[in-house]
Amino acid sequence: MADPTRIWTAALIVIGDEILSGRTQDRNVSQIATWLNVQGIRLREVRVIADDRDAIIEAVNLLRVRNDYLFTTGGIGPTHDDITVDAIAAALGVEVEIHEAARAILADYYETRGGLTDARLRMARVPAGASLIENRMSGAPGIRHGNIFIMAGVPHITAGMLDRLTGTLEGGLPLLSATIGCWVAESEIADLLGATEKAHDGCQIGSYPFFREGRTGANFVIRSTSQAGLDACVSDLSAGLERGGWAVTAGGI
Amino acid sequence: MADPTRIWTAALIVIGDEILSGRTQDRNVSQIATWLNVQGIRLREVRVIADDRDAIIEAVNLLRVRNDYLFTTGGIGPTHDDITVDAIAAALGVEVEIHEAARAILADYYETRGGLTDARLRMARVPAGASLIENRMSGAPGIRHGNIFIMAGVPHITAGMLDRLTGTLEGGLPLLSATIGCWVAESEIADLLGATEKAHDGCQIGSYPFFREGRTGANFVIRSTSQAGLDACVSDLSAGLERGGWAVTAGGI
Repeated sequence: MADPTRIWTAALIVIGDEILSGRTQDRNVSQIATWLNVQGIRLREVRVIADDRDAIIEAVNLLRVRNDYLFTTGGIGPTHDDITVDAIAAALGVEVEIHEAARAILADYYETRGGLTDARLRMARVPAGASLIENRMSGAPGIRHGNIFIMAGVPHITAGMLDRLTGTLEGGLPLLSATIGCWVAESEIADLLGATEKAHDGCQIGSYPFFREGRTGANFVIRSTSQAGLDACVSDLSAGLERGGWAVTAGGI
Repeated sequence: MADPTRIWTAALIVIGDEILSGRTQDRNVSQIATWLNVQGIRLREVRVIADDRDAIIEAVNLLRVRNDYLFTTGGIGPTHDDITVDAIAAALGVEVEIHEAARAILADYYETRGGLTDARLRMARVPAGASLIENRMSGAPGIRHGNIFIMAGVPHITAGMLDRLTGTLEGGLPLLSATIGCWVAESEIADLLGATEKAHDGCQIGSYPFFREGRTGANFVIRSTSQAGLDACVSDLSAGLERGGWAVTAGGI
């Protein structure tokens, strides 16, 4: 039987000059993080790197061995700056080849859109030995090679690929979470937070302060893989806050 | 005289379980990337890591030596999950100490807000030898230690700290950019993009496709440190697109 306490992890490499230049606001980190958690997989590290072959090779070879899964986004389109497939093939020490099923998908998709040009055929190139992740949005598929999942940079295309992968990856217990909020400066209840976390093994409490409507408040996110453990921790923390005179808003403010 | 071709680089470490869980959408990457570029500094790599001492130490020690500057965001508040200062001190092999000027700032800020408690005093702790980065938003300062800049996780507080640092960091030539857009599938003009980039030394062309109003389009971002080089590349690419029958929108679509 599988070990129910095993924690499955993933890393994500965001490949994109446009993120590092500040031009584009990344949306894939939160989307992939949320999706992974539902699969029972923890996102442990994200790296945002340039469209640079050596940077991709270094990150891929480190992160694929120290996580159960590695996701990448970006750089799999038809243009000269799309170098992800070549760099990952180099990282793995395999050739790049045309995937025949990908070629067929693209030929079909582009039949009424001007035909399958050489540039478009680039999107059928995969590291040798890969399988495809279907993409209903724009034809060009994502790519799976071992524990590496090569996804699009455009968030709604990545969303379609994630949808396709849902339920297919082995994971562990999802990390459950609950949020409560208070109109309190976190510095006033720092001791309570620390003591409550310490008293509840397997629970983590994150404190997220904010300033709104001219007032100071904070949301507290409690996480655990055990529903009973989570409930007990939320209950204790809420009681402590109420004892201190701060009204608690379930679900956060 | 300083070398005008020298490229100054920075890395950013985003410390935050809340980003990795998908709960919070990061805003600091694009804000810091944009700010750095104005200072003539390129953001070369971002890592998002957990509130984990060992992960912080590893990332800090690698990235501080391979970049001119290293920025961190997150984990400098008053609560038990704020471990950034301790981890960076450990990475540097220095003690953690109370910075007397930070203590004075906090004592002043909290004088009318319930006083300087032990938890609040945590925000005056710095790696020994550090200086402060003033924060007009919430009292607690950011921290500079050598080439490391330790910033807040809350984006508007980080913004105030960046404002404070503006013009104080040595940089090189800012990377200039121009954007043009076309209602064209990028796969149709992939060869033109590649050839144009090749013909313009020192220019990079990024291609960013989108789907809007039921149509396929793309924006092309041209980057160079030379205004003349940038202008020539934009002009050639625009001419090539127009020759192909695609109207070009200056500034992008």
